[in-house]
Amino acid sequence: MSDQVAATAAIERLDVELGARSYPIWIGADILQSSAIFDATVESRDVLIVTNDRVAPLYVAPLKRALGERRVELVELPDGEQHKTLRSVERIIDALAASRMNRDCALVALGGGVVGDIAGFAAACYQRGVDYVQVPTTLLAQVDSSVGGKTGVNHAAGKNLIGAFHQPRGVVADTRTLTTLSAREYAAGLAEIVKYGLIQDSQFFAWQERSVDELNARDPGTLQAAIRRCCEIKARIVSEDEREGGVRALLNLGHTFGHAIETAVGYGEWLHGEAVAAGIVLAADMSHRLGSLAAADLARIRQLLSSFGLPVAAPRIGAGRALELMGMDKKVVRGQVRLVLLERIGSAVLRADFPQSELCATLEQGFA
Amino acid sequence: MSDQVAATAAIERLDVELGARSYPIWIGADILQSSAIFDATVESRDVLIVTNDRVAPLYVAPLKRALGERRVELVELPDGEQHKTLRSVERIIDALAASRMNRDCALVALGGGVVGDIAGFAAACYQRGVDYVQVPTTLLAQVDSSVGGKTGVNHAAGKNLIGAFHQPRGVVADTRTLTTLSAREYAAGLAEIVKYGLIQDSQFFAWQERSVDELNARDPGTLQAAIRRCCEIKARIVSEDEREGGVRALLNLGHTFGHAIETAVGYGEWLHGEAVAAGIVLAADMSHRLGSLAAADLARIRQLLSSFGLPVAAPRIGAGRALELMGMDKKVVRGQVRLVLLERIGSAVLRADFPQSELCATLEQGFA
Repeated sequence: MSDQVAATAAIERLDVELGARSYPIWIGADILQSSAIFDATVESRDVLIVTNDRVAPLYVAPLKRALGERRVELVELPDGEQHKTLRSVERIIDALAASRMNRDCALVALGGGVVGDIAGFAAACYQRGVDYVQVPTTLLAQVDSSVGGKTGVNHAAGKNLIGAFHQPRGVVADTRTLTTLSAREYAAGLAEIVKYGLIQDSQFFAWQERSVDELNARDPGTLQAAIRRCCEIKARIVSEDEREGGVRALLNLGHTFGHAIETAVGYGEWLHGEAVAAGIVLAADMSHRLGSLAAADLARIRQLLSSFGLPVAAPRIGAGRALELMGMDKKVVRGQVRLVLLERIGSAVLRADFPQSELCATLEQGFA
Repeated sequence: MSDQVAATAAIERLDVELGARSYPIWIGADILQSSAIFDATVESRDVLIVTNDRVAPLYVAPLKRALGERRVELVELPDGEQHKTLRSVERIIDALAASRMNRDCALVALGGGVVGDIAGFAAACYQRGVDYVQVPTTLLAQVDSSVGGKTGVNHAAGKNLIGAFHQPRGVVADTRTLTTLSAREYAAGLAEIVKYGLIQDSQFFAWQERSVDELNARDPGTLQAAIRRCCEIKARIVSEDEREGGVRALLNLGHTFGHAIETAVGYGEWLHGEAVAAGIVLAADMSHRLGSLAAADLARIRQLLSSFGLPVAAPRIGAGRALELMGMDKKVVRGQVRLVLLERIGSAVLRADFPQSELCATLEQGFA
């Protein structure tokens, strides 16, 4: 990551290349208010904004102004992962039907990853698929969940068990919204940023180590550079493997362990990014046990996550429960748990060929 | 339609050509029990059969035998269109999660169009998409709904408002199952057969007129020929236009009026095929008003549907209510109702350029 690139902070545009379903990612300060950007992204005249009760008072008014002359309706969900359910999807569909929106309508998901996942899935299902735009307002959503078309809701048995691949028409990441995040939510987003360095880009990881103070201080230029780099990596991976047949699975580093944590403690207790942070440490620990990750690299990973105030230890849910919950994860194929493991910082690999005993040892030390 | 083709009744195979998502349609007597066909169609070792309480006692046992050594679980839904809801989808997903089925599982939809639509949508959503196979046991499902990947459930505000395009891995149409259909259900399937003649194939329509007695008697050879011809037409149309951007919309002849009927009288009161029959007559009537369909052809259409015991008049729900319900139909784009109309028997066209007064006249005479 060059320092020159890191210094710029104008409005930037990246593209996710998916043929007829390609779309832009806009990144910049105050772009939530930009009519020009929404005019270039939202074709429809009928729009339903989906948001939550914490984001609504902050950003619905400027977003409505940016949407200009369109007919705009609003659904306000309660905030939190525990509301990422089919019930919330139904509320959105009820609202779409009640306002007689047709196939040519568009949803705008204004909020964090939870709002984006729910609204994206509602858009995937309503009339067998309508347009939607992601307007992520958390760091986690800006660097990860708003890009790539994974949508869905949780089930008591597992995270995101119900969902669809449905690409947005665009992503509008307004970096100014990050100033209103709680410290905990902000840190949760940093966990996904660490993930991108680990799986693909050791220089980006090293840049994060050098930039801890700026990132913790939410320095706008540093943040925008980090968001852009994550979106570049994600856009390329999604373009290569839209439906996770191969390389896209690497983006799940820490997520199989993390999903088990989230499901075990109850949705909403740990933030997704917090569970991913602890999950990354478990994946790194297991990679080290298998002899593929050096002890010094494992220490650097723990250190970086800790310096962002993230948890590096899993809750004591017990190894047996963790293994059971990992068995429901979508990365399981033919009964065999597949895990994203690290060869070194900057290089991840999807493996199912590890001894079960090493997984058990990792879980026993991590969860018991 | 050649008489030579009509005379054969062996197991036949057609293919829906969709690149990597191509799949076979098998048509024949007793093929529900064929291990060879299921081995060629269902890759997965973990299978969930979705059926209803009327079909289960008749066909679950032979289907299980055909599925051989696979692990087979079962969900039995209550019979009827009124159960085509998100609740039923949730029941299926609960069962999939409870039996710890993963991304490599497959659903088998055993039943009519309702079961196929619900199970197909559950397969589209579970873990963002798993395999499913259609085993249609009604005439309507064999000639129409099991082919093409339209899945979904109803909403109080409209038919199939919640759904997905998700192609099956194969369709196994066992013509022997048609012997157990009620007269009313059987006739409902004939309505869709009439539709295929009307939109694409005047010779097929004329063949149906000549074959009324054989079709009403459920003559196996005649039936198989009719099913094959419908599947041929549908497979070609779906291959050309999977997501209904163009020609596929013609398959909705009679459906915009029909959906209004079904929603107005309450799901399950009229069978889907009955509503389509009355809807076809309305579409034909309007086509005649617009000067594009001859009076003699309109009479032939009424006559053929009547000779199959199908309704040719809509219920008296009122023109205003009908128009309101048509406004929620998925064929509406930018506030304008688009209708499939007939130029002549064998040629349909999608139109939005008609005078609203002619639509009102049709609805007033048809519904008031």
